[in-house]
Amino acid sequence: MSTHREIKFVRSPAGLPTEDCFSVADVPTPEPGVGEVLVETHVLSIDPYMRRAMSGARPEYRLKHGATMIGRGAGIVVKSRHPDFKEGDAVQSEFGWRERVVLKGEGLRKLAPDLKPLSLSLGIVGQSGATAYVGLHDIAGMKSGDTVVVSAAAGAVGSAVGQIAGINNCCVIGIAGGPEKCRHVVDELGFNSCVDYMAGPIDKALAEAVGDGVDVYFDNVGGEILEAVLDQTKDGARVAICGQISHYNSDVKAGLRNVHLLLDRSIKIQGFRVGSDLERRDFALEQLLQWWRDGKLNFRETVSDGFDSAPAALINMLQGGNYGKQVVRVV
Amino acid sequence: MSTHREIKFVRSPAGLPTEDCFSVADVPTPEPGVGEVLVETHVLSIDPYMRRAMSGARPEYRLKHGATMIGRGAGIVVKSRHPDFKEGDAVQSEFGWRERVVLKGEGLRKLAPDLKPLSLSLGIVGQSGATAYVGLHDIAGMKSGDTVVVSAAAGAVGSAVGQIAGINNCCVIGIAGGPEKCRHVVDELGFNSCVDYMAGPIDKALAEAVGDGVDVYFDNVGGEILEAVLDQTKDGARVAICGQISHYNSDVKAGLRNVHLLLDRSIKIQGFRVGSDLERRDFALEQLLQWWRDGKLNFRETVSDGFDSAPAALINMLQGGNYGKQVVRVV
Repeated sequence: MSTHREIKFVRSPAGLPTEDCFSVADVPTPEPGVGEVLVETHVLSIDPYMRRAMSGARPEYRLKHGATMIGRGAGIVVKSRHPDFKEGDAVQSEFGWRERVVLKGEGLRKLAPDLKPLSLSLGIVGQSGATAYVGLHDIAGMKSGDTVVVSAAAGAVGSAVGQIAGINNCCVIGIAGGPEKCRHVVDELGFNSCVDYMAGPIDKALAEAVGDGVDVYFDNVGGEILEAVLDQTKDGARVAICGQISHYNSDVKAGLRNVHLLLDRSIKIQGFRVGSDLERRDFALEQLLQWWRDGKLNFRETVSDGFDSAPAALINMLQGGNYGKQVVRVV
Repeated sequence: MSTHREIKFVRSPAGLPTEDCFSVADVPTPEPGVGEVLVETHVLSIDPYMRRAMSGARPEYRLKHGATMIGRGAGIVVKSRHPDFKEGDAVQSEFGWRERVVLKGEGLRKLAPDLKPLSLSLGIVGQSGATAYVGLHDIAGMKSGDTVVVSAAAGAVGSAVGQIAGINNCCVIGIAGGPEKCRHVVDELGFNSCVDYMAGPIDKALAEAVGDGVDVYFDNVGGEILEAVLDQTKDGARVAICGQISHYNSDVKAGLRNVHLLLDRSIKIQGFRVGSDLERRDFALEQLLQWWRDGKLNFRETVSDGFDSAPAALINMLQGGNYGKQVVRVV
């Protein structure tokens, strides 16, 4: 009987996860039933929400001990009993951390044959890019000429936010950790400027960078940076909350101290998940694919090699060790 | 030369305002020019935003020492040089704390002759009612069947929020201070229930009152009550922030500690001013007038007698001494 490896979530982390939160298991590879496909995982997506699912998120999204670790993946169909998919098709879906996975057609996305490497379908031309697109357009109501600020600017979603906002003729200011990330964001991704939050309190540098104020803030981190950007908002600003990574490894909730600005400046703040409107997500993915084909999107990836490197890749990403999308190359 | 009285803002309050923050002055009554009217003030509106203007608000809305106190009023035209208004017309506008005021036509609203008492045009059939309407419909996207919570429920805006939400077949839970206000809100205004925040921490009572969660929160107070209601929100909840009265008399910003829920539950929070879309405000006023004529709106007012009682009326309102709209009867 053929087997493959899966990675289980076995222990809740206190703070930053450690490798012993996970264990690798050899399990029998199931046969696809009617209407199902067997997929070989080529690449796994590593994302901040995974840490949130390991504790603290809504109960229905919280991972149970012993469960296979969650996560999107891309791979190749190796056996199909589904009319819409054939052997050799490149596909993307929620795989979990599995080397091989049996999936139903529902939620399984066939990838454009020219989209290479497959990891792009998880990053800038995938869920990360779609998250950026939906957050900017649907949640924040981005308009041409807006001043847009994005945190974790060198990360998977942040790097997409800056480029999409740039395509829409916005002035884009990134916030990232360290001079090298800031250089990357400006020189390679085309942001107008970038503020290094590791260089000290960002208030002054941010105020200079944004000029007459922020129209849109795309928030990936929460905490003190959210507070600092709120201080710089214009009347009628919109804040799309996509991540709160500053909270994920800590139980301490510092509290947002300038909530009064919401009223003083008629600010809108909204948390969102890209999956809550699949039609808009798919529209975004089509647009991103077009931009990528037109050469309008730059990207860098942080690739970790080998299926069993997934826990280390997650820990690296949660410490800000990634540029662009953090992925695991399985095959 | 004819004179009238005006009340000036002369000193910034530390905490709750005191009467010596104001002074009464006799001033010459101006003559209306071409396109202007002279109005006799019959009633003045007393509102929480006034305290905010006395310190802490956006600089452009902040009152200067020596300026005439701001505020809406309703009264009767006593001399007109404007083609659209004639002597005896009842009108409403931003009067300031003046016994007589010269105004241009712009922003001057002629009142329906059957709208009596005139104070209604400042409260439930005026700015307070319109604020409730716009906040519920335009900001919070209220839908029939929603569970709607409103703080300062016995106040001018809160009492309108509950009734408008009730007209839209929502389940309405008020938050108010003391058993008598709670009784008023339920028995006279028709709220489904009311939680007394003076009876101790509201978490448990609120959880029981809202059942499976809050869809819409209309926030007049901010602070700990905002935090407590956020804890009870459903996925996709909307929060309209209209006031933050818990902050106005204090420099301490406690901080909102459950911001992470915005992401976990895809919550939208938005601060707003009813004046930012005058077309919608006027639409709301027409609808409110119709409902009032149909007998669908209940109201209670807290009336302070005499022009020079305005400072005391403001101090009373800021301490929660009012039921419904706090007004000053000048004539």
